Amino acid sequence: MKNVAIRNIERAGEKDIQILESLGVATVHEAQGRVGLLQPYIRPIYKSARIAGSAITIQAHPGDNWMIHVAIELCQPGDILVVACSSDDADGFFGDLLAESCKAHGIRGLVIDGGVRDTRDLTEMQFPVWSKAINAKGTVKEALGAVNVPVVCAGQSIIPGDVVVADDDGVVIVERSMVKNTIQAGLKREENEKTKRERLAEGELGLDIYNMRPRLEEEGLVYLDKLEDYDKYKG
Amino acid sequence: MKNVAIRNIERAGEKDIQILESLGVATVHEAQGRVGLLQPYIRPIYKSARIAGSAITIQAHPGDNWMIHVAIELCQPGDILVVACSSDDADGFFGDLLAESCKAHGIRGLVIDGGVRDTRDLTEMQFPVWSKAINAKGTVKEALGAVNVPVVCAGQSIIPGDVVVADDDGVVIVERSMVKNTIQAGLKREENEKTKRERLAEGELGLDIYNMRPRLEEEGLVYLDKLEDYDKYKG
Amino acid sequence: MKNVAIRNIERAGEKDIQILESLGVATVHEAQGRVGLLQPYIRPIYKSARIAGSAITIQAHPGDNWMIHVAIELCQPGDILVVACSSDDADGFFGDLLAESCKAHGIRGLVIDGGVRDTRDLTEMQFPVWSKAINAKGTVKEALGAVNVPVVCAGQSIIPGDVVVADDDGVVIVERSMVKNTIQAGLKREENEKTKRERLAEGELGLDIYNMRPRLEEEGLVYLDKLEDYDKYKG
Amino acid sequence: MKNVAIRNIERAGEKDIQILESLGVATVHEAQGRVGLLQPYIRPIYKSARIAGSAITIQAHPGDNWMIHVAIELCQPGDILVVACSSDDADGFFGDLLAESCKAHGIRGLVIDGGVRDTRDLTEMQFPVWSKAINAKGTVKEALGAVNVPVVCAGQSIIPGDVVVADDDGVVIVERSMVKNTIQAGLKREENEKTKRERLAEGELGLDIYNMRPRLEEEGLVYLDKLEDYDKYKG
Amino acid sequence: MKNVAIRNIERAGEKDIQILESLGVATVHEAQGRVGLLQPYIRPIYKSARIAGSAITIQAHPGDNWMIHVAIELCQPGDILVVACSSDDADGFFGDLLAESCKAHGIRGLVIDGGVRDTRDLTEMQFPVWSKAINAKGTVKEALGAVNVPVVCAGQSIIPGDVVVADDDGVVIVERSMVKNTIQAGLKREENEKTKRERLAEGELGLDIYNMRPRLEEEGLVYLDKLEDYDKYKG
Amino acid sequence: MKNVAIRNIERAGEKDIQILESLGVATVHEAQGRVGLLQPYIRPIYKSARIAGSAITIQAHPGDNWMIHVAIELCQPGDILVVACSSDDADGFFGDLLAESCKAHGIRGLVIDGGVRDTRDLTEMQFPVWSKAINAKGTVKEALGAVNVPVVCAGQSIIPGDVVVADDDGVVIVERSMVKNTIQAGLKREENEKTKRERLAEGELGLDIYNMRPRLEEEGLVYLDKLEDYDKYKG
Repeated sequence: MKNVAIRNIERAGEKDIQILESLGVATVHEAQGRVGLLQPYIRPIYKSARIAGSAITIQAHPGDNWMIHVAIELCQPGDILVVACSSDDADGFFGDLLAESCKAHGIRGLVIDGGVRDTRDLTEMQFPVWSKAINAKGTVKEALGAVNVPVVCAGQSIIPGDVVVADDDGVVIVERSMVKNTIQAGLKREENEKTKRERLAEGELGLDIYNMRPRLEEEGLVYLDKLEDYDKYKG
Repeated sequence: MKNVAIRNIERAGEKDIQILESLGVATVHEAQGRVGLLQPYIRPIYKSARIAGSAITIQAHPGDNWMIHVAIELCQPGDILVVACSSDDADGFFGDLLAESCKAHGIRGLVIDGGVRDTRDLTEMQFPVWSKAINAKGTVKEALGAVNVPVVCAGQSIIPGDVVVADDDGVVIVERSMVKNTIQAGLKREENEKTKRERLAEGELGLDIYNMRPRLEEEGLVYLDKLEDYDKYKG
Repeated sequence: MKNVAIRNIERAGEKDIQILESLGVATVHEAQGRVGLLQPYIRPIYKSARIAGSAITIQAHPGDNWMIHVAIELCQPGDILVVACSSDDADGFFGDLLAESCKAHGIRGLVIDGGVRDTRDLTEMQFPVWSKAINAKGTVKEALGAVNVPVVCAGQSIIPGDVVVADDDGVVIVERSMVKNTIQAGLKREENEKTKRERLAEGELGLDIYNMRPRLEEEGLVYLDKLEDYDKYKG
Repeated sequence: MKNVAIRNIERAGEKDIQILESLGVATVHEAQGRVGLLQPYIRPIYKSARIAGSAITIQAHPGDNWMIHVAIELCQPGDILVVACSSDDADGFFGDLLAESCKAHGIRGLVIDGGVRDTRDLTEMQFPVWSKAINAKGTVKEALGAVNVPVVCAGQSIIPGDVVVADDDGVVIVERSMVKNTIQAGLKREENEKTKRERLAEGELGLDIYNMRPRLEEEGLVYLDKLEDYDKYKG
Repeated sequence: MKNVAIRNIERAGEKDIQILESLGVATVHEAQGRVGLLQPYIRPIYKSARIAGSAITIQAHPGDNWMIHVAIELCQPGDILVVACSSDDADGFFGDLLAESCKAHGIRGLVIDGGVRDTRDLTEMQFPVWSKAINAKGTVKEALGAVNVPVVCAGQSIIPGDVVVADDDGVVIVERSMVKNTIQAGLKREENEKTKRERLAEGELGLDIYNMRPRLEEEGLVYLDKLEDYDKYKG
Repeated sequence: MKNVAIRNIERAGEKDIQILESLGVATVHEAQGRVGLLQPYIRPIYKSARIAGSAITIQAHPGDNWMIHVAIELCQPGDILVVACSSDDADGFFGDLLAESCKAHGIRGLVIDGGVRDTRDLTEMQFPVWSKAINAKGTVKEALGAVNVPVVCAGQSIIPGDVVVADDDGVVIVERSMVKNTIQAGLKREENEKTKRERLAEGELGLDIYNMRPRLEEEGLVYLDKLEDYDKYKG
């Protein structure tokens, strides 16, 4: 890895980012063809947070937050910090001081493949974080990394400027070139789901709404009357 | 596995189910001789939910919710869906649409050896779920499984119609033939615990209430005055 | 292990303990040179609890709470129970009855390298617990262990009478002989952080507050204008 | 759980058991419709062991080998001990002495959802074990369990007398009533695979042998010439 | 993800690939600045295998080996298959038949973020595999993925044609554009290590060879005579 | 933690150390009352190694082997390096060069709560290592730690000069003051086991050798004739 910090990145439009936020992680993931999710071990430190923004990517070393300081200077309001780590690590290398600094610069939140500390303060400040662990183990400033280079965070490849969407379900990444298509597909999906949800709420079955019965029969699902029949059937 | 769906199962009486719910998971588990618990990695998606109902069992494949649709049609109000998975998997193959459908049919909740998504919606709807993971990764409808056959879910063998009891402590299964005995033992235990709890609240020691002192002495517990004595004692 | 229970331990002063509680886990950990943390898998059963007290140490066997009963008799108000386990175990060997007894004797909370049950009751009683797991699997009283001997709990060596500090960030141990130094360093750190936090809140950068720029340059961090330059730079 | 030991169980025929052994775990698993596998965390303590036999099931408690002693008396030559554990546990509650006793009674091996010790001796004796862990932590004889009742071991439901097949790939269970069908399907599969293997060895492609090309096209797989075309294609 | 298969990729020269193989994983990793390693949970199925080759990348779905068949047709002798999976999965979706086919086409080995089966056969055939798990659970051919697109495998971003180096220490990826630099740095490192190894073998200390003493003193390492002095020193 | 290196430690006698080695981990663990074992995730990098020696303890930071260099100078022939790590870490911070240096100074092996690399070389050199992981990820020399202070390694408290015994079953620690007692108990146990093993090899049952039958009856174990009786018995 070269130790560089890239000053300028391209970002998606704020209006598009807002729509992606309102669609939420599960819908965005489906809308772009089921790609882009971070591993589910990345969890929010408090419930009901929901954000979207442009990824400022950080390649860091275990327990070392030096590059986060470098990154904050390169952020614009509405950005989200995304920290990848060179080794599997759960040290808490982000806390209340850095969160204060982030808030002062309009940063919307943090996604970190590592740990955070001061979670009570972060919750009171309503600075949302998605992390691998909560850990009071603090931080050093020893080793250079990189800012705004492509990273792999929690199993997902991320380019600076990609849109990060995060909520209670986890974190999903939308490539900048895919934003328009994803929004279109997402809104359509949402509309579609709304209708289906109403029909389901009235008691109609998914079996009928999705017309599953013929395919179930074709694939060979057998309805039996009671459990006793199963043993005979297997025998 | 044969791909079958069993239409009719035997259920415990609703009154008995209500009593088991009120006893809660920890007491029911003790009352039936410490069996029936699902592995503790199965956790509620929100706190303070507490349900009991008849198990509708589902044998599914990773990330595939086809059989859940089949199962909903076979449910009665008061049932609980129990989803076992043919491989270790954390995909979120249950979300808000299926929850809407479940609510419309009076299903009380879901226990799933896999993931769920749309957890914010599920919480707002107050549809309780106990799962292995929260994961936005969605679902396919590709492979047949089975409904209402015996399954192993989170390490526990479950027969359709068994009573599922779930709360903040986890999930326990009561075999239908054991319901009466379990209730009897559970109520007795609860009564017993109430008295003990009052005595403990007044400062009486477990050592005295349970008459542990003689057995401690017999087994050879040695009281020493201070830590320094321990080194001498060991030497 | 010898099966002993030590009656009397030395404790830190209550005033000092209160200061350590107010400093919180992250600050205490830093203040004493980044030692003393339990592994981060030890998590609170509910949010926002914050306690400090003298460690009553318990060496127990999997699923066996016999020694906890022995320990309660040896506690003073303000103490915290610390349970180490002879094998990796997640059974829930502490529940509402023991919590009632603890409260009656002024015990402030529990740290356990194992599981707890009755977590809804414990939350309602506001008896804080930091544990490895939540598990309804109950308890036996079969095997002797020890009380108030040195233990290793969640990777941390603990002497009876050490000060335990626990909050949302986890659990940290302060050796009795280190209490005064830790408080001094912690208060200084807190003062220091307050000033820094104000400066960060006003938008000043960590890069400037900590004077990081010269060292970043010395170590060789290169600023590039845009991502395209990176590929050239690597080539 | 009731504390019982069942003296007599039904077994499959030795000749059938030999055929299942020769088919091996992967083929048997496929042949019976992809059911019956234990979780893959169950691993052999040494490579190249390959056995099949009738399951003597043991429900034990963590670290407690009392029921194994009870079980050995109820074994016949050719049986395999299958130990399930009431809690998740990795203690080594089987070692060289018990292995000696097993060998003396013609027991072919051990499958244990827990740990083993004395693995060097077991390897020298060529007594094969599939376990969750290797752990010198020994054993107690404190708590009753059961022998030859239905158990769940490593996620798999097992009835005494089921056939256990174990090799480097893991462990699979064949229900007694399924033995004949499984053998028939397995032999057919093996024959089928032999032919295919020869064709593949000659360089024929799976794409052609399994006639996959039409379905790939139907599902929409697009062949592109080079990676650069992919970016255009996505745009 | 678009369902594509890219026919032609650029490869590094075979001579360079041979040098990278001879350098081995640890040296290559160091030589290119400590990047490129797959997570250490990827382990060889047998010891002492050591290969290098060009990556044919495969994006697959859990338990689905359809795309592996597609990939084999696009391989050249000397290539290595690299399988990424859309969900965390341990199913064994590669076995002896596919290995036979790979051998027939000169494929050197497999790296898979999933499971493999038939490991005894693979070992006898000396077809080396680095995988996350060994699991007899077989495979389906249901869902399209992609071949020769960029993937993330075990936390590492991989482009088709990157050089894969694998041995007992794990797997490392060398970007094609970095091959020459890495070889140069690696050979230099090896030469350098040879000399150091000889000096170390003669008993010279790393402290002296690397001239560590001044920096240790500067950083403040204190030599004490005996453990008793430490307690005084801490006090 | 204070950054110190203690030059001189007390060691057990070599003859005693040899006896402990010959007893092996499982017997030593039992002989000293089932204490002293490291967590079972610490595994040997190759089979059949068996060593004992005096612990030179090292407190290190993730991925940092600086203190190992310091420690080697303080070793005597027959010592074993024991590396504890300040954070959960799997980086491979020990490799062939350090092993060469260890061999040159008569160090018998390494126990490390972290990773190792160059495992093929280490195996060829027959330098035995017990570690948490195998990982090519290399090492830095950045942060001071300590040598020959008390550490916690893999859940076990260790004092410099304690005897380390390691074999295929794992690693056990014998406190120096306990060496004589442990040897005495271990030899007795071995003698005792030899006799039992002979009796077991002749087919005598543990039930009879240990006289378990009366206690089984007393505790209430019920023998039933066949599985069908169990259902009646439970009902």
